[in-house]
Amino acid sequence: MKLHLLLLSLVTSLAAAQTPSYPDAAASDPMALGLMQGFPPAADKTVRFIDGSSLRFPNTRWSFSHIRELVPTAQVARGNGSVSKLPRALKDLDAVSYADMDGKPRTWKEMLALTYTDGVVVMHKGKIVYEKNMGALASDGSHIAMSVTKSFVGTLASMLVHEGKLDAAAPVIKYLPELKDTAYGDATVRQVMDMTIGVRYSENYADPKAEIWAYAAAVGMAPIGLDYKGPRTAYDFLVALQKEGEHDVAFAYKTVNTEVLGWILRRVSGKNLATLLSEKIWQKIGAEQDAYFAVDSIGTEMGGGGLNANLRDFARVGEMMRLGGKFNGQQIVPKAVVSDIEQGADKAKFAKAGYKLLANWSYRNMWWVSDYGAYSARGIHGQAIYVDPKSHMVIARFASHPIAANAAQDPVALPAYRAVAAYLNK
Amino acid sequence: MKLHLLLLSLVTSLAAAQTPSYPDAAASDPMALGLMQGFPPAADKTVRFIDGSSLRFPNTRWSFSHIRELVPTAQVARGNGSVSKLPRALKDLDAVSYADMDGKPRTWKEMLALTYTDGVVVMHKGKIVYEKNMGALASDGSHIAMSVTKSFVGTLASMLVHEGKLDAAAPVIKYLPELKDTAYGDATVRQVMDMTIGVRYSENYADPKAEIWAYAAAVGMAPIGLDYKGPRTAYDFLVALQKEGEHDVAFAYKTVNTEVLGWILRRVSGKNLATLLSEKIWQKIGAEQDAYFAVDSIGTEMGGGGLNANLRDFARVGEMMRLGGKFNGQQIVPKAVVSDIEQGADKAKFAKAGYKLLANWSYRNMWWVSDYGAYSARGIHGQAIYVDPKSHMVIARFASHPIAANAAQDPVALPAYRAVAAYLNK
Repeated sequence: MKLHLLLLSLVTSLAAAQTPSYPDAAASDPMALGLMQGFPPAADKTVRFIDGSSLRFPNTRWSFSHIRELVPTAQVARGNGSVSKLPRALKDLDAVSYADMDGKPRTWKEMLALTYTDGVVVMHKGKIVYEKNMGALASDGSHIAMSVTKSFVGTLASMLVHEGKLDAAAPVIKYLPELKDTAYGDATVRQVMDMTIGVRYSENYADPKAEIWAYAAAVGMAPIGLDYKGPRTAYDFLVALQKEGEHDVAFAYKTVNTEVLGWILRRVSGKNLATLLSEKIWQKIGAEQDAYFAVDSIGTEMGGGGLNANLRDFARVGEMMRLGGKFNGQQIVPKAVVSDIEQGADKAKFAKAGYKLLANWSYRNMWWVSDYGAYSARGIHGQAIYVDPKSHMVIARFASHPIAANAAQDPVALPAYRAVAAYLNK
Repeated sequence: MKLHLLLLSLVTSLAAAQTPSYPDAAASDPMALGLMQGFPPAADKTVRFIDGSSLRFPNTRWSFSHIRELVPTAQVARGNGSVSKLPRALKDLDAVSYADMDGKPRTWKEMLALTYTDGVVVMHKGKIVYEKNMGALASDGSHIAMSVTKSFVGTLASMLVHEGKLDAAAPVIKYLPELKDTAYGDATVRQVMDMTIGVRYSENYADPKAEIWAYAAAVGMAPIGLDYKGPRTAYDFLVALQKEGEHDVAFAYKTVNTEVLGWILRRVSGKNLATLLSEKIWQKIGAEQDAYFAVDSIGTEMGGGGLNANLRDFARVGEMMRLGGKFNGQQIVPKAVVSDIEQGADKAKFAKAGYKLLANWSYRNMWWVSDYGAYSARGIHGQAIYVDPKSHMVIARFASHPIAANAAQDPVALPAYRAVAAYLNK
């Protein structure tokens, strides 16, 4: 199949999924469906990357927990240190009730199903109070984090700024002269870090002409043929991006900004993202598992969405952020970097992006920052590291919601997080 | 590029490499060549899977240490146990001298270069006496083991036989009725385990019509296009194999036998090879790193050659075998399984295969067994786990020799192993 036909079929199936006709969490449970069970699995239960089936719901309910079996990846090594202990004091949160943004009464347990949760860990005051794995996610497995990845890239960038190795005020082309004639030719690193870049790039998954599809092919997230002529690496894609509008005027969420930031980090550090993340965070938190990045055809990590990790390790990262960057007996992320994220960015610029469900939020160093003290790394199918220092709470969640938009789940998920926080602190 | 053209170009370049004109180890050092250095690497220093470049020497000197960045893989988890200590008592073996099989005087150090060694660990009486990493292999990295993989599959099979879960005397079709009309329709499990199967399958890498190339495409080791119509999984390939000659007459080294054995193991255990290897060996030896298998388009591990591992972890496996299956405080492989391998198989059947450099050897449970007490897992570009209980010695080696045949390196490598054994024990 030609690439454009393949992408069209993906978009069509995705558009179809965006009607309310998709099966619910129980009906799309990958184990109950028998996806990829047996040796070999039945033909109609087989999920592959090359035919696009791994990108289609409900197959995503299996594939999001099996990315390394589908595409090439780069190891984010945990090293050989001890696994950090996560004390447990389990509570039954299933019945915690709240009203969703539409005013409907809901429970925590209901929310998990409505948002197609694959796994969730809630920590309160340093202890795991709730942990549940569903679908195809094993407790020692990994799940794709999608745009949660961006918050790691943003944090690493902030750390290098803090260390004086990267100048946030500098023009991007100080580090990447290759981008001189692109949208980034007159942008600063800070504008990239906070995504206030004017660049022609649409992330509308429902539009087959949106650049997200060409990007997906370039970075190895969509299958290509041997005769494919388009860009084959993140780099090739980035050097063709053109300006649209002005920088520094409004928040505009575009994955390519994170790819540019990842490139800057590699150029500045001389290391790839997998190594940087391993050295600066993964080896220090006492992770249980190596993490990994999906990579393009030349091993370039997809910094905008390609990180895969174990859920408890994401809880560790959230806990580390909650504690001002200190965890597992050491200061891992500088306190100033955490504080900078907590304080958020310009709310007026954020408001221009029109996120009605996130009124008064902002986006700082690639974290989503609320106006009530919590902030979050967020992935498009419901993945999240949600840090709420005031409530002494961290939530790490993986999900495989059929709709590629947080707007589909924020109305039930965000109030649930706040309800659980209130419950835990009452 | 069409698949057959691509394969032809691979074969042609391989054939070219088989003349004595290829650069030596120093000249083909991937770091010195600048392969895959920088962000992005220069176009002429870029190694990819999809264009076949990762399979061509000297690119293989980089790619063999970076397989997971090139193809999908399945995790062989080390679990969260402690890393087992490997005591060190380093000795300078570089000057150990010996005569190669052609009578030429050589040194250990010379051998390492002549065989394009990427890393080597020598253990004597339980201690690392020599360790060296070269080329693109980091000491905490992994390297493709190629046919060393087979010895793991053979060992796992022997363990299941020992546990009474698998009957070596049973017909293959007791477990895999799918193979009724294939070469395996009248074969026994034991014949598969010792590779005395009569099957039409050529492993002659220099012949573009050899089945090895169709197999490579099917199991995901050679790139295919979106329009590829051939078998896409190991299973699809195996069910088409036809008989040639008789079973149980002669040893005939054919990778597909290991794929059949791997399929039997999955069917009998209900687990994939990655899980089996993790549970039965990797979690128990105190491995430093997860290992991983290259997988086909549906996640099937390439049991015939797809294992990638850390070199010191292979040394641990060798040491475990040397000690009769006991290592890291526990009996991991039953002693009877190790003894069965040590005793080898029918030398007369082995002799019929015509391995002139391995006179009086045999092949048992997918290990190569010498007539002087040592036995070895062997991979086609020089990978090895060489176990010499009489000499209290284990050698683990990774290499990326340009010639896909052990005959290209056995004449210098095997006498070097024996010379080092003699040196260490004098």
